[in-house]
Amino acid sequence: MDAMFKLQVNRMKQILVGINGYGVIGKRVADAIQLQQDMDLIGVVDVATDYRIRTAAVLGIPIFAADKDSRAAMLEQNIEVVGTMDDMLRQVDVVIDCTPKRIAAANKTRYDEAGVKCIFQGGESHELTGHSFVAQANYASALDRDCTRVVSCNTTSIVRTLGALKTGGLLKRARGTLVRRASDPWEGHREGVMNTVVPEQVIPSHQGPDAQTVDPTLEVVTTAVKASHNSSHLHSWWVELKRNADREEVLAAFRAAPRIAFLRMDEGLTALNSTVELMLDLGRPRGDLWEVALWEDGLAVQGNEAYYTYQVFNQAIVVPETIDAVRALTGIERDGERSIRETDLSLGVTADFFDHAHSLRA
Amino acid sequence: MDAMFKLQVNRMKQILVGINGYGVIGKRVADAIQLQQDMDLIGVVDVATDYRIRTAAVLGIPIFAADKDSRAAMLEQNIEVVGTMDDMLRQVDVVIDCTPKRIAAANKTRYDEAGVKCIFQGGESHELTGHSFVAQANYASALDRDCTRVVSCNTTSIVRTLGALKTGGLLKRARGTLVRRASDPWEGHREGVMNTVVPEQVIPSHQGPDAQTVDPTLEVVTTAVKASHNSSHLHSWWVELKRNADREEVLAAFRAAPRIAFLRMDEGLTALNSTVELMLDLGRPRGDLWEVALWEDGLAVQGNEAYYTYQVFNQAIVVPETIDAVRALTGIERDGERSIRETDLSLGVTADFFDHAHSLRA
Amino acid sequence: MDAMFKLQVNRMKQILVGINGYGVIGKRVADAIQLQQDMDLIGVVDVATDYRIRTAAVLGIPIFAADKDSRAAMLEQNIEVVGTMDDMLRQVDVVIDCTPKRIAAANKTRYDEAGVKCIFQGGESHELTGHSFVAQANYASALDRDCTRVVSCNTTSIVRTLGALKTGGLLKRARGTLVRRASDPWEGHREGVMNTVVPEQVIPSHQGPDAQTVDPTLEVVTTAVKASHNSSHLHSWWVELKRNADREEVLAAFRAAPRIAFLRMDEGLTALNSTVELMLDLGRPRGDLWEVALWEDGLAVQGNEAYYTYQVFNQAIVVPETIDAVRALTGIERDGERSIRETDLSLGVTADFFDHAHSLRA
Amino acid sequence: MDAMFKLQVNRMKQILVGINGYGVIGKRVADAIQLQQDMDLIGVVDVATDYRIRTAAVLGIPIFAADKDSRAAMLEQNIEVVGTMDDMLRQVDVVIDCTPKRIAAANKTRYDEAGVKCIFQGGESHELTGHSFVAQANYASALDRDCTRVVSCNTTSIVRTLGALKTGGLLKRARGTLVRRASDPWEGHREGVMNTVVPEQVIPSHQGPDAQTVDPTLEVVTTAVKASHNSSHLHSWWVELKRNADREEVLAAFRAAPRIAFLRMDEGLTALNSTVELMLDLGRPRGDLWEVALWEDGLAVQGNEAYYTYQVFNQAIVVPETIDAVRALTGIERDGERSIRETDLSLGVTADFFDHAHSLRA
Repeated sequence: MDAMFKLQVNRMKQILVGINGYGVIGKRVADAIQLQQDMDLIGVVDVATDYRIRTAAVLGIPIFAADKDSRAAMLEQNIEVVGTMDDMLRQVDVVIDCTPKRIAAANKTRYDEAGVKCIFQGGESHELTGHSFVAQANYASALDRDCTRVVSCNTTSIVRTLGALKTGGLLKRARGTLVRRASDPWEGHREGVMNTVVPEQVIPSHQGPDAQTVDPTLEVVTTAVKASHNSSHLHSWWVELKRNADREEVLAAFRAAPRIAFLRMDEGLTALNSTVELMLDLGRPRGDLWEVALWEDGLAVQGNEAYYTYQVFNQAIVVPETIDAVRALTGIERDGERSIRETDLSLGVTADFFDHAHSLRA
Repeated sequence: MDAMFKLQVNRMKQILVGINGYGVIGKRVADAIQLQQDMDLIGVVDVATDYRIRTAAVLGIPIFAADKDSRAAMLEQNIEVVGTMDDMLRQVDVVIDCTPKRIAAANKTRYDEAGVKCIFQGGESHELTGHSFVAQANYASALDRDCTRVVSCNTTSIVRTLGALKTGGLLKRARGTLVRRASDPWEGHREGVMNTVVPEQVIPSHQGPDAQTVDPTLEVVTTAVKASHNSSHLHSWWVELKRNADREEVLAAFRAAPRIAFLRMDEGLTALNSTVELMLDLGRPRGDLWEVALWEDGLAVQGNEAYYTYQVFNQAIVVPETIDAVRALTGIERDGERSIRETDLSLGVTADFFDHAHSLRA
Repeated sequence: MDAMFKLQVNRMKQILVGINGYGVIGKRVADAIQLQQDMDLIGVVDVATDYRIRTAAVLGIPIFAADKDSRAAMLEQNIEVVGTMDDMLRQVDVVIDCTPKRIAAANKTRYDEAGVKCIFQGGESHELTGHSFVAQANYASALDRDCTRVVSCNTTSIVRTLGALKTGGLLKRARGTLVRRASDPWEGHREGVMNTVVPEQVIPSHQGPDAQTVDPTLEVVTTAVKASHNSSHLHSWWVELKRNADREEVLAAFRAAPRIAFLRMDEGLTALNSTVELMLDLGRPRGDLWEVALWEDGLAVQGNEAYYTYQVFNQAIVVPETIDAVRALTGIERDGERSIRETDLSLGVTADFFDHAHSLRA
Repeated sequence: MDAMFKLQVNRMKQILVGINGYGVIGKRVADAIQLQQDMDLIGVVDVATDYRIRTAAVLGIPIFAADKDSRAAMLEQNIEVVGTMDDMLRQVDVVIDCTPKRIAAANKTRYDEAGVKCIFQGGESHELTGHSFVAQANYASALDRDCTRVVSCNTTSIVRTLGALKTGGLLKRARGTLVRRASDPWEGHREGVMNTVVPEQVIPSHQGPDAQTVDPTLEVVTTAVKASHNSSHLHSWWVELKRNADREEVLAAFRAAPRIAFLRMDEGLTALNSTVELMLDLGRPRGDLWEVALWEDGLAVQGNEAYYTYQVFNQAIVVPETIDAVRALTGIERDGERSIRETDLSLGVTADFFDHAHSLRA
């Protein structure tokens, strides 16, 4: 990032951010916050005493213990602890809760009592915050709110893509099948799914209604299965368009939206794993893919029906939305499009992986 | 099977059957032929000299070599060979070609020259035989033909289930996503798919048009992906019905059709692998599942839309259709429903896995 | 089995057997008991109300509930229940406990109070019974005891193979690495290990000392890892022999022992999965492999060192030992070798999978 | 790297390096060359026209086509090509051949004709170059040679660890079992091993003799199996020591050697996948692990026998050796220890992943 740009960033105030939970999402959000011109990371809260929290120390991130017991446990393991969660809450404007499902809800009272704005992740219910967030869909409605929920990886991808078709005037209704990853790579040694496919017990699955918490006008139904891999979901969609269209019109609608990137099978990107390899090849931190990665040469349009497939890298896709949510809640940037652009520039989000201009290293 | 039943089977002639290719399908068809009252298995043709063909010997099945070179190779490995394929063709009324994709087509000329009726499997094109077969859909049109093609496992399942909805007066159009197994269990050590999902390069996939070779009235489109497991495909369907309906009506249509069995998640059958275990528990040979196994409590109907999921055990589902095809081509049984019933009784095909009456062992 | 053989079996008394736990091991033991001339299966006890226990009903096995609550739950699910465990204990001479690890121990008091002999599986400690059993090693010492423990699948395989080398006068010491399966096929959808290898936390692993509970003279140390597959363990051994030997001597020692069968890579049996396929091809129930399956052409002997690899089908290998343990405890057969022979004949245990004489179907 | 250090690097000449083959190894070596003070990367040669070579373009690496046909194919795909391999060979002092097994050998003549020193990878035979290289073992003997072979990932790890025990005066003989990964992550969609373990057909396996091409005094035998995961090999060792020792002595020997790092299960690093996660967490490029990662709390010593387990990240472990080989062949650095230190500093190689001083980002 060149110096001129830094000078243009001339804000009154840096937003002070804390993160509760240094897991799959939390550690990525911590990286991303540190790349923002208008934010400072005060630290991260966790309860772990193992390699996961030790890496935060190696990376120079201040560590707060969830409570006094955690603090004692950490100190016993020679982990340098700055304080407890209460200490962190006294120093931040916004806390991003990345704790596991069902733990987060209980934290809200404490954030409210501390007078700290808060952002939750998609494992929580819409009701917890009364607002569900995807930057391109409803940034404005989150402005100055006390809290919001960044929706799950799958829901984020649905709102991005169906939102693109809606904005393009094409969307009538959508029916999607989600082939979910079974566990995250780090936990593959304990909760995996082996040599099978597991359909979700509730059909249709919850992602359809969840997308409607962000945009109630989306006419969308999903079913979901878990398959025997541990990185990335794959979505296969049938969309009924408002009118007959051709491939180029549908692609144009996707291209006009942010955070959708394109893969081509004829460039050798033929499966989830080759995209993951590509992200590592491009030097992306942790091999992260923040974009919905949509197979351009897998898109078929027949009359008023479109079929397409895309990849959701569940570990990172909500990171840019989380950054935007910080700006929306604090109101430091009132224009959603400008926040999206700033976030994307800081991370290296692109629509075209092979475009030199967007490369991280170039 | 009791003696009384055998006496009732009073046919003029036993059909003499040969099988070309003792692989995943061929060996199962060989088992099934031997269970039929009106068929005799003359032998199997193969080129292998390893454990696969040795098991045929252990099971007492006459082995023919594909040609003289194969014969020499087999003899060198102390495999007892009865003759070559030409010898077998001289003795049979029907040959069932279960050789690998692309080899089968070349065999047709030899079958024709030998004056032997022939049945191909779904890896071959419709054009090879000009007739594609699913017993419940078009038995009558195969009567007395020289050849037919039993369609693939996926296509068979589609014709069975959509055919059921059509017969029930419910089917308008169907859009399905197929989560395919990556390889068969026996070959998992060489051509597998690891920790990824691979979308098919052509969208929509070939199974939709393939179903239409059996029933051109089916309005069906499919997309397909390969996942990281090696046993059973899973299909997830959205079906637009001709009218609003409730779950019971849709279930009734499925129940009225042959070769669809029902699974219940609330009985612990929550994934592909538990069904496979159940088949072994029930004492089925090779753990075979000949039925489309449809999750009864996974069926959702909303207005005129139905969502459902089923399992296709690719190794065995076409076995009953292949048996029926033998009867249709030879005309020994002119009524498709009676052939289906006879085949199903011989194998133990059921709609209800826990119904004592249908159990193999009971 | 021909009628003449049945007549030769002329025993004073049938042993009445009950099984507690109808899971992976229990259901196989239930099958095996029913194949014995000198045993009757009174029934199985379980707590499940799902497909697992329903299959017992389909197979005609009397079902007892673990207790009154279980009984009520089963009846609510329309599962026919004959009584509770206490009812079963009143009717049996021997109970085979196949309940999960840590549950079994608590059952022992009840068996003792009921005056019923009992057999535990390898998940329990040696201390529970004071006797650990592998038929070929110590049948005699189990005669007329009240209880014994059939050791785990891995330990059973170790005692069989090292016992063979010891009997052959060849064994000095052995060091083995165990590549364990991560979960059983039926549970692959919930506790799996994905795309990794997990070393056991304790090195050396417990299997070495466990083998010494059966034969304290074995000088054996093991290490173990879990890999990302769900069927069969693989053992890789280095053995120091008492003297220089050649391959044939070592093979001869293995061949002289019971329940070791031989695989050949040059017959296409090149991996765990092809052996599993072979068992299904041979018509074995549930695809079971009761033998240690040792790669004959994978055995290397250099001076006084032998290297070899074998497969342990964890779901079934202890079934024959469990049958023998019934005979030993009840004393109905006082000669271990005769019990082994009778068990093996009833199941179809063989040293040579392609030997017609031993085929189940031939 | 601070400015003072750069000033200390005051060499007469930069070594000009070319890489033939931009695959799993080649792309990592390309990254590493660019981090060296005394080397310049002239470019990479390849034949691919897909995403793999496009990333080189994104990263600003000059691309040479293997030949004229490749050049035409690349240009047709709008890949910017600087020239052909012959053009690159005219500009470089050393070429590092990272082409696939069996292709590399044929290239040697061309390198020799071009008067360019060359380094091959472990897929090639020792005979091709007459010298096999592991930096800590035999740097000096490679000085000023025309060519060498950096041994395979497995062999490199063996020489590093057994070399450490030898240097520590402890090694008598070693017997290892290698649990290999089945394919690399990027190719998991086509050549995988699913749900099985595949023993190598030749026992003992080739890695033992291969280690002896580097150090003929190592008394080492290995057996190997392939398991169903796609990242990292795991080695399980039994080592007979020259004398009785305790854990600390053995650990001290390992700690004294370069490029061995330590994992602790009690820090949550319990399997191959958690180490991979850790590398990504630490910000390492591509998640690379260049060290042998040995479980410190998995080491057991009993009398004169040691048992230990370590992880070999096959994609990257030979990268530091390859860099050292460049210095050895060109003689620009005549002291192996200094080359190792310089390479390790440039990459961030460490013995202690949680030591702040060695962190890449800190």
